[in-house]
Amino acid sequence: MGMDKKYKSYHNKFDYSYSFGTFGTVEMIKNVPEYAECVLVHESLDLNSLNLLKDLCSQYNIPLKQDCNKLIEKIRNKESCNVIGVFTKFEKALQNNTNHVVLVNPGDMGNMGTIIRTCLGFGIKNIAIIRPGVDIFNPKVVRASMGAIFQLNIKYYDTFDEYRKDFMNYDCYPFMLKGAVDLNTIDVDKNKPYALIFGNESSGLDDSFLEVGQSVFIKHNNNIDSLNLGIAVGIGLFEFQKKVSLVAAV
Amino acid sequence: MGMDKKYKSYHNKFDYSYSFGTFGTVEMIKNVPEYAECVLVHESLDLNSLNLLKDLCSQYNIPLKQDCNKLIEKIRNKESCNVIGVFTKFEKALQNNTNHVVLVNPGDMGNMGTIIRTCLGFGIKNIAIIRPGVDIFNPKVVRASMGAIFQLNIKYYDTFDEYRKDFMNYDCYPFMLKGAVDLNTIDVDKNKPYALIFGNESSGLDDSFLEVGQSVFIKHNNNIDSLNLGIAVGIGLFEFQKKVSLVAAV
Repeated sequence: MGMDKKYKSYHNKFDYSYSFGTFGTVEMIKNVPEYAECVLVHESLDLNSLNLLKDLCSQYNIPLKQDCNKLIEKIRNKESCNVIGVFTKFEKALQNNTNHVVLVNPGDMGNMGTIIRTCLGFGIKNIAIIRPGVDIFNPKVVRASMGAIFQLNIKYYDTFDEYRKDFMNYDCYPFMLKGAVDLNTIDVDKNKPYALIFGNESSGLDDSFLEVGQSVFIKHNNNIDSLNLGIAVGIGLFEFQKKVSLVAAV
Repeated sequence: MGMDKKYKSYHNKFDYSYSFGTFGTVEMIKNVPEYAECVLVHESLDLNSLNLLKDLCSQYNIPLKQDCNKLIEKIRNKESCNVIGVFTKFEKALQNNTNHVVLVNPGDMGNMGTIIRTCLGFGIKNIAIIRPGVDIFNPKVVRASMGAIFQLNIKYYDTFDEYRKDFMNYDCYPFMLKGAVDLNTIDVDKNKPYALIFGNESSGLDDSFLEVGQSVFIKHNNNIDSLNLGIAVGIGLFEFQKKVSLVAAV
């Protein structure tokens, strides 16, 4: 069982990762019980949370280990939490004929968690990440997503072309400062699934994306160079949600 | 001169604070030279940045001190930067007859920086913060704002009522999960300035705000409890920018 592994402070080479805190751990167990390895509990955990976790773990046959103070303090590093869920990393294929978000070289862990959560809230359950990109299983991302990561299909691709080959039928909307059309005036084909594409926090999408589908810009003034990536994704998703009746939001 | 102070790692009780990095320090000097105390430079700074800062400092008569390696390493803590601008904290009164954002008890420093920057990008130059609220001069906020903080008027109020008394003529739009009207369908009086009001990251606005002006909700599904505060502000600002021709965006 997972109980006997020597768990350590997270490293992206591990084939497992952690959900910090009760909320995230509950989301993990409920959504991907097949990947749950075990739950570690600190003695400072309140009784209500402990009982909730005990019930869930027994329901799904997941080992729960109490009195893990030292182990938790080692794993959590400087984060504060008194529960850690251990789960095997997983990758789920993206669904076809449902809308996607594509993130090209995202670099910020907090942003990534927020974006994952925002996608879920606006009905996007499929995210492609073009490498190099942040490690979505870093506990900081998992935590910032507030468990949303366990409800989505997220897949890494080495190149955008590789993603594109899998979803040739999609209407692509790269979000770029140089985008050709104002998000406010864009016309969306309601009968086709779409991919909203966003670049890296600092560098955005390179000019080659001007040739990909219909490039879009979000209007703002010149007092700032660009919007924060998470904000841009939020605005993009909100607007597209209005423009189309979502295609097969499974 | 400021040069002789014994600068230390930031504390919110100080009457001065720091801009970390060349970009933020340049923004500080250009926008609030009257509050600049001095500029500290690490020997690892590249020559281009050094010359840029030297020119600016000489133009505005601000002391620039080189070879501050130890001092910078002490002040910057775990952040990475090789320039630190020191400035006296300031508070600017909010302008009347121009649109405002009101943040009630904001708690997250990274969010706050992003919100400040997003406000600037959407033409909002006046922000009220209702206490308790995050310290906007914490170097983490200053850095996350990417210098935008030096272009805005930001004022703290002890209570929302105190703010409201100063701006009785404003149309207020509290953003709440329980909001009465969908942001998409809201009708805005283009002839009156408005205040967009947002609550704390975790708790939002309390029910008393249902009685303040026209409460608004941002439509999302039930898979998440609420949107991230920064995302909500971004979407709110983007939509209002469309709905009205901005009133006196000074």
